[in-house]
Amino acid sequence: MQVIDNITALKDVIGKKKKKGLRIGLVPTMGFLHEGHLSLMRAAKAENDCMVVSIFVNPLQFGVGEDYVEYPRDLEGDKKLAAAAGCDLLFSPSVREMYPRGYATFVEVERLTNSLCGLSRPGHFRGVTTVVAKLFNLVCPDRAYFGQKDAQQAFVLQKMVADLNMDLQLIIGPTIREADGLAMSSRNKYLTPAQRKEAVTLYKSLQEAEQSIAAGEREAEVLKQAISQRISAIKGACLDYVEIVDTTELCPVLLISGKCLIAVAVRFGQTRLIDNVIVEV
Amino acid sequence: MQVIDNITALKDVIGKKKKKGLRIGLVPTMGFLHEGHLSLMRAAKAENDCMVVSIFVNPLQFGVGEDYVEYPRDLEGDKKLAAAAGCDLLFSPSVREMYPRGYATFVEVERLTNSLCGLSRPGHFRGVTTVVAKLFNLVCPDRAYFGQKDAQQAFVLQKMVADLNMDLQLIIGPTIREADGLAMSSRNKYLTPAQRKEAVTLYKSLQEAEQSIAAGEREAEVLKQAISQRISAIKGACLDYVEIVDTTELCPVLLISGKCLIAVAVRFGQTRLIDNVIVEV
Repeated sequence: MQVIDNITALKDVIGKKKKKGLRIGLVPTMGFLHEGHLSLMRAAKAENDCMVVSIFVNPLQFGVGEDYVEYPRDLEGDKKLAAAAGCDLLFSPSVREMYPRGYATFVEVERLTNSLCGLSRPGHFRGVTTVVAKLFNLVCPDRAYFGQKDAQQAFVLQKMVADLNMDLQLIIGPTIREADGLAMSSRNKYLTPAQRKEAVTLYKSLQEAEQSIAAGEREAEVLKQAISQRISAIKGACLDYVEIVDTTELCPVLLISGKCLIAVAVRFGQTRLIDNVIVEV
Repeated sequence: MQVIDNITALKDVIGKKKKKGLRIGLVPTMGFLHEGHLSLMRAAKAENDCMVVSIFVNPLQFGVGEDYVEYPRDLEGDKKLAAAAGCDLLFSPSVREMYPRGYATFVEVERLTNSLCGLSRPGHFRGVTTVVAKLFNLVCPDRAYFGQKDAQQAFVLQKMVADLNMDLQLIIGPTIREADGLAMSSRNKYLTPAQRKEAVTLYKSLQEAEQSIAAGEREAEVLKQAISQRISAIKGACLDYVEIVDTTELCPVLLISGKCLIAVAVRFGQTRLIDNVIVEV
């Protein structure tokens, strides 16, 4: 596995791979890799000739007062995990390499970013789309892999790819969960043992919503109320949002029909966790 | 010359050219081609294996009350001119092809777009950078050509290319002028014979500024005053701006030093003309 931290070297290596006609699969990450990332890497490895992982904690997607500084980092551990997953090229640039002095250009997806996490984290998705557009231009992937855990991110990026006519396929891998159902996330590390135990309620409440829908419930408000009550019962947890939206415009629906995303965000002290399920009726 | 109006066919043709290793030169235009465009096409033809011209009057870069509807169009005439200049592929999509229903993604360059035309035309450069990013992704050019007449546009696009790590070279061709010095522009068509005669004052005033600088003048305010007085003397003309800025951040300078852009915008009735010179001391 090659490890590269600068753009000049990256362009050189990627240029050679493209010239050979190799298909490139890119897994963009913020590092502190877990099984969620690794499952994307295995898919990228299987479906392409060359698997590239980027590790970059992108300051642009963190708001004021968010956890940019504390965000967990472990580049040495990540290198081992990525290599073991078959990564051919690991790109881990500095902030100055990605955003040199005088940086001024931003990519923004409107509307889809106005709900869910976009509401709680203004500017977050603008940071995501900007850095991912840069990574796409640098790595020229044939396929790029994102996890369904960050469902809004994946849908926003799919919109960006389609709207800007980017020549690649964006693939959404399933959410990978701990044995008890908690969605894997680098931020789970922040949880106290007590919070960790309670955190499983996010997924439990989503599963109960799925069961209600299977039993015939169609009213979004009823489903949201049930989730909200379940989560509000956790001591020390604070519901950020529970929403049921369509999967194209991410607009709230009144009745479940077709494909819908049920998404929750919950704060455990300073730690904000998200989870979601996609239902289809 | 191939003429294509849809993205699927374009991608197919471009994919084949790239596979053959052909270098592509792109000249993005809004059509109603004149010698300014043609000089860019000749450069693109000479420096690449395949010369692509796009003709698209981009609604996104016109403000409310601007001349989107009236903007001159002559696709049949343009085809002949482009073919004669050696164009291999002409791409002339519809608005719906470029911005399908539900379109939501925008590329924005900050700071450099806050002065000059960016101030008079809010949203204009956001429209320009968005459509050009799309065209770059569709055509995958090795080189793209823009005229110095739209100097701020060229600098903003250079910034976008650098910031988003787009893998192409942006080339700025010189302003092409009528015999009397008026910068060629599709909008010159709007001028009455009397306005057309007076319009040469834009360039005359810029040339006089160049002469003053050659004679030792360094005070931006003195140079701007002279240009402003010269243009204000034209009956029926209205100065939109005269600015002297550096060529990286497009910030106003107090004293001429290094490379500076002297730019003017003038309204003749509904018609807004721009011109500029770049000086270096």
